[in-house]
Amino acid sequence: MRAEIEEQPAALQRLLDARGDIAAIAEEVRRRDIRFVLLAARGSSDHAALYAKYLIETVLGLPCGLASMSSITAYRTGQSYAGVLWVAVSQSGGSPDLREATRVARDSGALTLAVTNDPRSPLAAETELHLDIRAGVERSVAATKTYTNELLALWLFVDALAGRDGSAVAGVPDAVARAVRDSDVEEVVSRYRFAERLVTVGRGFSYPTAREGALKLMETCHLAASAFSGADLLHGPVAHVDGATPVMVIGPGGAGSQLLRPVVDALVERGADVTLVRGSADDLPGYAVQVPDVPEELTPLVQIVPLQLIALELALSKGLDPDRPSGLSKVTKTL
Amino acid sequence: MRAEIEEQPAALQRLLDARGDIAAIAEEVRRRDIRFVLLAARGSSDHAALYAKYLIETVLGLPCGLASMSSITAYRTGQSYAGVLWVAVSQSGGSPDLREATRVARDSGALTLAVTNDPRSPLAAETELHLDIRAGVERSVAATKTYTNELLALWLFVDALAGRDGSAVAGVPDAVARAVRDSDVEEVVSRYRFAERLVTVGRGFSYPTAREGALKLMETCHLAASAFSGADLLHGPVAHVDGATPVMVIGPGGAGSQLLRPVVDALVERGADVTLVRGSADDLPGYAVQVPDVPEELTPLVQIVPLQLIALELALSKGLDPDRPSGLSKVTKTL
Repeated sequence: MRAEIEEQPAALQRLLDARGDIAAIAEEVRRRDIRFVLLAARGSSDHAALYAKYLIETVLGLPCGLASMSSITAYRTGQSYAGVLWVAVSQSGGSPDLREATRVARDSGALTLAVTNDPRSPLAAETELHLDIRAGVERSVAATKTYTNELLALWLFVDALAGRDGSAVAGVPDAVARAVRDSDVEEVVSRYRFAERLVTVGRGFSYPTAREGALKLMETCHLAASAFSGADLLHGPVAHVDGATPVMVIGPGGAGSQLLRPVVDALVERGADVTLVRGSADDLPGYAVQVPDVPEELTPLVQIVPLQLIALELALSKGLDPDRPSGLSKVTKTL
Repeated sequence: MRAEIEEQPAALQRLLDARGDIAAIAEEVRRRDIRFVLLAARGSSDHAALYAKYLIETVLGLPCGLASMSSITAYRTGQSYAGVLWVAVSQSGGSPDLREATRVARDSGALTLAVTNDPRSPLAAETELHLDIRAGVERSVAATKTYTNELLALWLFVDALAGRDGSAVAGVPDAVARAVRDSDVEEVVSRYRFAERLVTVGRGFSYPTAREGALKLMETCHLAASAFSGADLLHGPVAHVDGATPVMVIGPGGAGSQLLRPVVDALVERGADVTLVRGSADDLPGYAVQVPDVPEELTPLVQIVPLQLIALELALSKGLDPDRPSGLSKVTKTL
């Protein structure tokens, strides 16, 4: 896991060098009359899909949803998918439910795109278009470099689809390299060593990071980690947050952070132990793990790094093996 | 909270008696060319929206998504919502972010429908169509009767939109009354008294119940309760489930339960303490809280009842006041 966290800047650069392929896929999609986008994924890839949902809504202004695969695989209903772009995101491209749902989506009139780390995967064989995220072989069960390469692949795709020039991304591999090298997670790891539960909070572009960070902590440290959007947290779950519950707030910088401010205030008022992950543009108050600045839209690629490092170091401090979480395998075959 | 749990059969019957109003709204919607549905909600209403998503996908075969409100309220992007039905679900109809997002959806070309318990709410004033769930005033902060009436309102709406005759619902108020009267939750309450964390699991039509049950337990008992779809659980989070983590599996009966079987097997293999909530049609193995049988599509109205009762009784056994969860108010105003 440590080696794959450290490989992320090189893996991102490799994908950037192949961006011409992604522009060609976007050009194919632009030729079609796409009016809605559905994203289908599980686990870490589902968090990359959630990131893509925010991008599609805010950059393209298109309505977008995350697919409930059981509606297709359990209930086998005919769907009307004319005008729909179906994007299946999966590191392995091997899960049967994703493959079957994608086949049905294509048969129902959707334009289908697979985003995977394996061009020869069963999923890629089902779709009209395939985007190779070029992360290289990932051995650790907890996804790291495949996650950040999925994020970049989806950003490059949406950026090209919007007809933008992609220049915003230039500094990202270097910012990720600095986050890997400089993130100061030692104090957090030491303070969370005996925590049984933990809450992560994001809003807008930082919500996928909160979700992915919680998953890493469940997988590698066996923590009861729950992720919430700041608004959802205040609609009920905040009742279970007290002084014994560490809270990690991911500040997206910019507009998203303004919506998080009343949430942080409410948490501090309840006596919660709040740690922020944020860039210098973000003025949310509290103890902060600082990350390099990039445009808000691209912050998920950088902000996940300290959370990956915390999951790794906290697992080691508990005597757990982060590379082999209990009961998990690299390719999960759900129906 | 106890009084409102017990009022549910009467509140459901009141709404059933007014189903003609809902059919008229469905008739209005049928006149428009709806190709995609977006649902917007928070908290318990978000779980009702998730239920509606499964209904829309499986009964209508329409692509459907849950709206990310921050894409509108934080990032203020123009949206293309031609052909979209926007359904905002809210007990109070009072949250500013939901109101603003709904106004933008309408201005962007969506047909808008508010589903609320207050026809004079700010939200209902923003939409072209309004569906009154007729639950009566709800005083407990933890929503119970407004949740089940939202479920029924959305079922009646989708049923009418599909041109079906609504007969499937006839036995539901009685089944809910029997669930309120007969659910045997005493042993579960006793066994969970000292639990710090808990996992709920559903699939398909039982996933909204898993989500809503976890929220009730967070709100009233301050438990770290996390809900997962069975497939998502196996893609990582299962690593944090061990013999010290109680798991409640909600069996939807029928097709959804078949997909849950390998999940229950994996949990039992890990030594997890599994309690099932299920009807007699469901043969998932393990200790079960039994609920009356209704068609799978309508099980969420019945299956939430034992979870409401567990949240209530567990809170009382811990000396907590279920009517006034710490730090919550009845109308949550998020931006």
